[in-house]
Amino acid sequence: MTADLSRRLVAEALGTAMLVTTVVESGIMADRLTDDVALSLLGNTLPTGAILVVLITILGPISGAHFNPAVTMVFALRREIDRKAALAYIAAHILAGIAGTLVAHAMFGLPLVELSATVRSGPGQWFAEMVAAFGLVFTILAGLRFRSDAIPWLVGLYITAAYWFTASTSFANPAVAIARALSNTFAGIRPIDVPAFIAAELAGALLALALAGWLLVEPKTDPNMEAAE
Amino acid sequence: MTADLSRRLVAEALGTAMLVTTVVESGIMADRLTDDVALSLLGNTLPTGAILVVLITILGPISGAHFNPAVTMVFALRREIDRKAALAYIAAHILAGIAGTLVAHAMFGLPLVELSATVRSGPGQWFAEMVAAFGLVFTILAGLRFRSDAIPWLVGLYITAAYWFTASTSFANPAVAIARALSNTFAGIRPIDVPAFIAAELAGALLALALAGWLLVEPKTDPNMEAAE
Amino acid sequence: MTADLSRRLVAEALGTAMLVTTVVESGIMADRLTDDVALSLLGNTLPTGAILVVLITILGPISGAHFNPAVTMVFALRREIDRKAALAYIAAHILAGIAGTLVAHAMFGLPLVELSATVRSGPGQWFAEMVAAFGLVFTILAGLRFRSDAIPWLVGLYITAAYWFTASTSFANPAVAIARALSNTFAGIRPIDVPAFIAAELAGALLALALAGWLLVEPKTDPNMEAAE
Amino acid sequence: MTADLSRRLVAEALGTAMLVTTVVESGIMADRLTDDVALSLLGNTLPTGAILVVLITILGPISGAHFNPAVTMVFALRREIDRKAALAYIAAHILAGIAGTLVAHAMFGLPLVELSATVRSGPGQWFAEMVAAFGLVFTILAGLRFRSDAIPWLVGLYITAAYWFTASTSFANPAVAIARALSNTFAGIRPIDVPAFIAAELAGALLALALAGWLLVEPKTDPNMEAAE
Repeated sequence: MTADLSRRLVAEALGTAMLVTTVVESGIMADRLTDDVALSLLGNTLPTGAILVVLITILGPISGAHFNPAVTMVFALRREIDRKAALAYIAAHILAGIAGTLVAHAMFGLPLVELSATVRSGPGQWFAEMVAAFGLVFTILAGLRFRSDAIPWLVGLYITAAYWFTASTSFANPAVAIARALSNTFAGIRPIDVPAFIAAELAGALLALALAGWLLVEPKTDPNMEAAE
Repeated sequence: MTADLSRRLVAEALGTAMLVTTVVESGIMADRLTDDVALSLLGNTLPTGAILVVLITILGPISGAHFNPAVTMVFALRREIDRKAALAYIAAHILAGIAGTLVAHAMFGLPLVELSATVRSGPGQWFAEMVAAFGLVFTILAGLRFRSDAIPWLVGLYITAAYWFTASTSFANPAVAIARALSNTFAGIRPIDVPAFIAAELAGALLALALAGWLLVEPKTDPNMEAAE
Repeated sequence: MTADLSRRLVAEALGTAMLVTTVVESGIMADRLTDDVALSLLGNTLPTGAILVVLITILGPISGAHFNPAVTMVFALRREIDRKAALAYIAAHILAGIAGTLVAHAMFGLPLVELSATVRSGPGQWFAEMVAAFGLVFTILAGLRFRSDAIPWLVGLYITAAYWFTASTSFANPAVAIARALSNTFAGIRPIDVPAFIAAELAGALLALALAGWLLVEPKTDPNMEAAE
Repeated sequence: MTADLSRRLVAEALGTAMLVTTVVESGIMADRLTDDVALSLLGNTLPTGAILVVLITILGPISGAHFNPAVTMVFALRREIDRKAALAYIAAHILAGIAGTLVAHAMFGLPLVELSATVRSGPGQWFAEMVAAFGLVFTILAGLRFRSDAIPWLVGLYITAAYWFTASTSFANPAVAIARALSNTFAGIRPIDVPAFIAAELAGALLALALAGWLLVEPKTDPNMEAAE
């Protein structure tokens, strides 16, 4: 990784902003076009999964394509990014996420910032966010270990699934959670519900880090599927 | 394959649990959000296909990513996994599948275990399960023969199709069938209907093993599509 | 290609039967689950595209994965398959396609054979079938020329698109057209409308063969996208 | 790139025509089959994304697979295509795009040309088109820099997402905008609204060119995702 820090931060900011714009706008678009909530969620899922594959492929070589403070935290704990860069990454994620919401609102002629009134709270939702972030971070760490070229697809497909297999529709990203608190639309979350989401996400990420530290360490195998002894 | 048995079992358990959580939860989610059953099935299909690609890619290098007693049985008959490990795999699949149902219910605040009341029975359904498992196992064996790197995609796409081309929506997995009997939701199956499903699945798997033993043995070709003599 | 003819014919028959089963059954399934025809077509499209990727990947190395008399005709005209094998392929496609319909009906407890009453006729439909088959055959020939490893994906994605961009929903396959005439369900076609469909498909295939003979001959390029001179 | 100009122009024309046919026809098809606009947009999105992967894969090696005057303009500014060829490309895009609309109308028995009455105007829409074209061109340039073999997928997935994350449903292509003005169907745009769309698209393309000139220049990295310093 030889890109200088300014380019890396621009790449992280661009990717996070486009991710949030996609999440928020496709939610607005789907919600306007149909009364069927499952269809809205589908119209929210497909663009999010698709854009993740694109953004990680084209920006990963510059900055690592974290787009997510929980991911940056894990790489910092693994000492694969230094503390100063990690803090700058996280600031970029949060600011760019908010900018992504503004862009989405500007396109639809909505007020640039509105506080969301969507309640997302309770043990079921928190447990869901923990599971969602656990799966995301474990997918990234295992992908890096065995098939790093496949990571854009793995993350895109993981989030595609997680939108439907978590009761919270899988934010799994503190910067995205903050940005979505500023949009009173399909993808929104009440600001007061954000801290618990972030705590659950960080807990899930740490759990994945711990499991990966054991499960992914020893094997020295080829990438084939054979169960041969 | 050099991972020790404990890691392999954890990988099989993690994968099977996440697979079942995805199947059960996306069914609950879709069913709650819409009254259109085709849309529910779509909301059940996409996450299942997507998570299979992810799980097989990231856990396959550790344990082979069976997640399915019928698959383990076939590899045991091919002597590609020893008897003791095979039995441990199957136990892991069944227990982790049940755990996956519990996780799904916990997220939605449902009772952790409920017996399903969904009738899935009759010759059409059994025939469908046999076809589903036949196709799944043949896809895996032919994939191993010709394009082992593509197996995660092949399995994910096969199940995506099989949800729609089988009258039973393609369980094709005894551990998943057992786990789904404990969920009285969209993806459920009445416990009394499970044994016949398992029998049909094992029969389909054996049929695939037999056909593969003949059809996949002789050819020594390159992976191109040419029909040239 | 060294597989003997008997294995090749079994591979062609298995693939064609599974393709037709998928097309017919997913149509029945979708049609039963929803009243929205666009949703039925979606539930018909995704499984068909997905199973094509799988079948061409796992059976292509054995037989070339034609599954389609129009494709075999083109390879015979290019002298890439001998006349005797080509005739056997085409017979296998037609018989296995019919068998695929029977399997689909058996799963749903329908009469094994019913003549379809769905009218699919008129210049718009014929023109659509010609375009559909033209695109399919050109995709295969250009794929073989530039990216033969990608052909399973190219065909699956092409048919996914063609279900929606042709007024006829893109049969593009004489054997599938015959098989669908025997199913009075979502995917059916009136027997009397089949000959014109087949004629249009063969015309489209020949058009693609002619264009490929000119367009794909000269260039000697690398697979990059650059427009550099 | 050694194909002669005539072959390159035929490839550009064929690709642009098939792209427009897919966009327009899938819109007509979806709109006829359902009253739910989100479902229509989904039935418009999937075929468009799928056919882009196919067309760029099979025609890219011949002509570069621009299919879009904004893309050709950018390559001309980068001096990767000479002025004469660039002008011929753009003419081919516009004429073939119109032909694509005619083909779509012919299949459905509609008048071959109808002026669209669909209003697509206002700052939100123009901003959306600028963002859409910016993202498309940046995706192509970054793809060429880091993973040129993945470009067909990147473009197909980008457009899949952009249909939903832009208020304008992402035309992002002047030739497609002109062609869609001639179809009074789901995908149409009022002729009087086209010039502002084209201006916004060209502005977005130039913005991407400028950003790429800085962001993509320095790094010399391997395609892995690691954030290691």
